[in-house]
Amino acid sequence: MDLTYALAIAATLAFSVTGVLAARIQQLDIIGVTVVGVVTAVGGGTLRDIILDVPVFWIADSRYLVAAALAALITFAFNDLIHRGYRWFLYMDALGVALFAALAVMKTLALGLGSAHAVVMGVITGIGGGIIRDVLLDRPTLIVSRELYATPICLGVGLQLVILQFGLLSGQQAVIAGVAAIFSFRAAAIYFHWHMPDLLTLSNRPPPGPPGD
Amino acid sequence: MDLTYALAIAATLAFSVTGVLAARIQQLDIIGVTVVGVVTAVGGGTLRDIILDVPVFWIADSRYLVAAALAALITFAFNDLIHRGYRWFLYMDALGVALFAALAVMKTLALGLGSAHAVVMGVITGIGGGIIRDVLLDRPTLIVSRELYATPICLGVGLQLVILQFGLLSGQQAVIAGVAAIFSFRAAAIYFHWHMPDLLTLSNRPPPGPPGD
Amino acid sequence: MDLTYALAIAATLAFSVTGVLAARIQQLDIIGVTVVGVVTAVGGGTLRDIILDVPVFWIADSRYLVAAALAALITFAFNDLIHRGYRWFLYMDALGVALFAALAVMKTLALGLGSAHAVVMGVITGIGGGIIRDVLLDRPTLIVSRELYATPICLGVGLQLVILQFGLLSGQQAVIAGVAAIFSFRAAAIYFHWHMPDLLTLSNRPPPGPPGD
Repeated sequence: MDLTYALAIAATLAFSVTGVLAARIQQLDIIGVTVVGVVTAVGGGTLRDIILDVPVFWIADSRYLVAAALAALITFAFNDLIHRGYRWFLYMDALGVALFAALAVMKTLALGLGSAHAVVMGVITGIGGGIIRDVLLDRPTLIVSRELYATPICLGVGLQLVILQFGLLSGQQAVIAGVAAIFSFRAAAIYFHWHMPDLLTLSNRPPPGPPGD
Repeated sequence: MDLTYALAIAATLAFSVTGVLAARIQQLDIIGVTVVGVVTAVGGGTLRDIILDVPVFWIADSRYLVAAALAALITFAFNDLIHRGYRWFLYMDALGVALFAALAVMKTLALGLGSAHAVVMGVITGIGGGIIRDVLLDRPTLIVSRELYATPICLGVGLQLVILQFGLLSGQQAVIAGVAAIFSFRAAAIYFHWHMPDLLTLSNRPPPGPPGD
Repeated sequence: MDLTYALAIAATLAFSVTGVLAARIQQLDIIGVTVVGVVTAVGGGTLRDIILDVPVFWIADSRYLVAAALAALITFAFNDLIHRGYRWFLYMDALGVALFAALAVMKTLALGLGSAHAVVMGVITGIGGGIIRDVLLDRPTLIVSRELYATPICLGVGLQLVILQFGLLSGQQAVIAGVAAIFSFRAAAIYFHWHMPDLLTLSNRPPPGPPGD
């Protein structure tokens, strides 16, 4: 459990750093930077807990809050330096997403809810913070990008649920399998610049009708 | 009650379909499509339940979630075909908005809250999902359009509350009156392309001052 | 306490008026205007209460709701007249932000939470409504502007927490000190058109790399 906690704090730091670096082209002030870092880091889990009607995780443990704020401030101070390691933070961010999503599944199942809820909570926890960040920064949200962000979560969480359903592995091993699946897929998407194939993308052909309609 | 439930599921399907069709000009992938469909369908009721601090309706009954996700996936697969019936889905969407708003009023009153809260909850339930969808898709929200969307809800819910206040009809009959009023007004607005008259629209004249100020 | 309540209602009115005036260049209809006014006025406190998992303040007392809606409608009717007094409403808005933030601190501490939570809740209560308004109106949020809005809250709340921590003043006096600090700083920023200095603003230099990368 200690390892899980250390990883969750590391993921929080990574979320905050990538959130601030994503805001780099906008002239945010130091307070705005902190808000964006914190919101990116804790936004998804906050949505999950509010919808599940359980205490919000960073209300119960303010260390997540402090970690996210400090990471944002450090990124503010050394943003050129940290930006050079941007790619590494993307992988840490991917690991964080994987961990948070897989743990959200266990949290949801522990409340007696089913697989549909577990998938939704995994996705909300994984992408909620990034979406709120995009809205705050007034830029297209990651839903309209074709980047593979929610897809690895869905597939990895699906694998985790199948393993649990058929009792193939213990709960903890299923989490590890879910994290590994989400992270591998997301990391490969970052490394190889994968995008969703056209077949799985909504046609943007104009609706049938006379031209100029 | 069975009829109400069937109508609520039908409304959920319609919300999801119109949500996905609204996203058609953007190159959403299959996961993004599902997120948009589900959020459009359940977003308003989710906001209502969180603010009222009652269990979120799709946590208590995951069929809403599954219905919305399936409708989104089917719309993804047959989007050209379904787009041809877009107009019919707009009317189903209008019926769904009417039903959800009128039921939100009863849910709010049943908690011992008053008319002001009932109107607000009707509006939030009716337009919340559409607003979150617009934000996710990074396009102007329906608040800044002059389309008659919230107005039919306000008037229909007002009628429903007057009927209840003066004991003119039973609770169930008041719901039917509210649904009929909201749906008729919204359907007429769709059919006749009604927009809010200038008199009831905020002036966009520049503020007084020297030119070029 | 009566004075606090009267000030909170006055602040609600001011939030709603400034919210509607901010929407003036967009052709909102009368219902949209009311939604924007109410959301600007109660949005921040709503987020705070949902995250703290306490009853939402305007559910417990609908007078906030009615005050915000009436102020929005009056601003709609007399928007040219009221726009001439815009500057005065900015100062009333600043007083409202100061009051709401300082009271949010006490509410948070009264729940047994710590300083980090108190700062976050002060900021959320102070700027949450304005951010939701900006998102509804599809314009850049106040996070990406360099206006001094969250900064006075952070500094004033920090002062209030130091006073409380060291027992320098009573709780009520600490609130007055916090309100005075936030309001003075924000009012000075409005009057003198202060913006965040470059030193405290994230560099918008392009990331290092070959041109055209």
